[in-house]
Amino acid sequence: MTSTIAILAPGAMGGAVGRCLAAAGARVITVVEGRSERTAARAREAGMTAVSWTDIAAADLILSIVPPAEAVGLASSLAPILTESQRKPAFIDFNAVNPNTMNRVSAALAGSGCPIIDGSIIGPPPSPGKDATTFYVSGDDLDRTEILSGLGLKLRRIDGPLGAASALKMVYAGINKGAIALGTAMLLASVKADCAPDLSRELSESRPEVLARLVQGIPDMYGKAYRWVAEMREIAEFLGPDDPASGMFEAAAGLFARMAGDREGNRTLAKALNGVLGVSGDGA
Amino acid sequence: MTSTIAILAPGAMGGAVGRCLAAAGARVITVVEGRSERTAARAREAGMTAVSWTDIAAADLILSIVPPAEAVGLASSLAPILTESQRKPAFIDFNAVNPNTMNRVSAALAGSGCPIIDGSIIGPPPSPGKDATTFYVSGDDLDRTEILSGLGLKLRRIDGPLGAASALKMVYAGINKGAIALGTAMLLASVKADCAPDLSRELSESRPEVLARLVQGIPDMYGKAYRWVAEMREIAEFLGPDDPASGMFEAAAGLFARMAGDREGNRTLAKALNGVLGVSGDGA
Repeated sequence: MTSTIAILAPGAMGGAVGRCLAAAGARVITVVEGRSERTAARAREAGMTAVSWTDIAAADLILSIVPPAEAVGLASSLAPILTESQRKPAFIDFNAVNPNTMNRVSAALAGSGCPIIDGSIIGPPPSPGKDATTFYVSGDDLDRTEILSGLGLKLRRIDGPLGAASALKMVYAGINKGAIALGTAMLLASVKADCAPDLSRELSESRPEVLARLVQGIPDMYGKAYRWVAEMREIAEFLGPDDPASGMFEAAAGLFARMAGDREGNRTLAKALNGVLGVSGDGA
Repeated sequence: MTSTIAILAPGAMGGAVGRCLAAAGARVITVVEGRSERTAARAREAGMTAVSWTDIAAADLILSIVPPAEAVGLASSLAPILTESQRKPAFIDFNAVNPNTMNRVSAALAGSGCPIIDGSIIGPPPSPGKDATTFYVSGDDLDRTEILSGLGLKLRRIDGPLGAASALKMVYAGINKGAIALGTAMLLASVKADCAPDLSRELSESRPEVLARLVQGIPDMYGKAYRWVAEMREIAEFLGPDDPASGMFEAAAGLFARMAGDREGNRTLAKALNGVLGVSGDGA
């Protein structure tokens, strides 16, 4: 029997997941109403079928894959539809949100009758046949996500309650995206202090792996900075006000907000960073 | 002619620099008055000669190598001695301080008649014959530090005014010690959220170089955390209140203060971190 998987929304990550599942034989549905023509084209081209909001309930599983700031909103929008529906598909929140936010997602859908599963995605948008991307789930007592394994996704269960998969995403992203924030801040400061060539020479000699990571990760961040603002705030809230490190992520959110503004404006900061890094790209 | 180099103080870094310079044939003097017997023994064993504070002025160069919070205090203590002295040795501040603090060091010694040079050290305590440690200097128009090159230190000049070498140290340390702060915070959070084994497995698979750095760098930090508190504050001040990233380093200072307290107490946090990292060491 062909499985039907709903993916909301068909962005860069959701579209890539949809393509993998469609390539593996699933029927993949999504909603493109109100989205750009470019997004609609991407969804079509990935083998996804555009349906109406109410038809989303026809899925076996609903995957929520949106920017972190939209996770609760999406769950709230779906709540009346799923509550009305006879079918009760499992809803999996795969977003980069903290366990508290995951609880809000769960609360928004509490009256719907649908099973709620916590998930997170670590790695780049997946490609069929590659396994660089891991899909973590927790709170899936009845193995409802097994279907995704069967469709070729690299799925990993975390022993733990609803929220454990979200927590894992927070700590992993905190280390890696936090490092991009540090590198961005320090490279910009080195330009201001006229020691940028000295910094990149010293890094290339004593920490070549760190420099390589910044050369790859900083330009890749420009186009995602607006999403990372909310993700950094999720991490700060995850740590809570009593953890002294919480402020690192509040501040990283501020830095990424500045980079998002730069992207919308004249890209002065991105150009300065590219100059230090010796690259010309402007990211995804 | 044998050069005389004064090193204050003979701590882990200062002692190692003293050993290199003594091994290269310099007369290396220091002050051990008021220091522990262990420090005095380390200085002797490194080939350094203990002298009185007033005899420090007999040096050709004075190297200030102290924890960042002590840099201005040391300069202020030496000011009357150097002002009184006939000899006017160059004073090089090699500490992990920001350019503003470097200016305060310079101001403290302004009336002494001694040339003031900005410096910074990047890398581990040096060993004779190895070149893993680079000594940066700026504001040394008359090449007074050439003598250190002649004695085998890997010396690098930065084109820039007094403060450029300090700025380089700030941006380099911000990237690398900042990453240790991120790792420490996230590993501790993963223990609290019961996803520590998942985090270390995911890192070992997708970011093995990051995990390796944390395995090495986090235990190494425990014994230095108290010094890093001041260093993180130097970086925060370097960025200034208008830079959104400044708060990352204020917060990192708070985290390292917590780790320094843990070191003095029951070491609960260090034990938890070692557990995730799979190590048993407690650092230097």
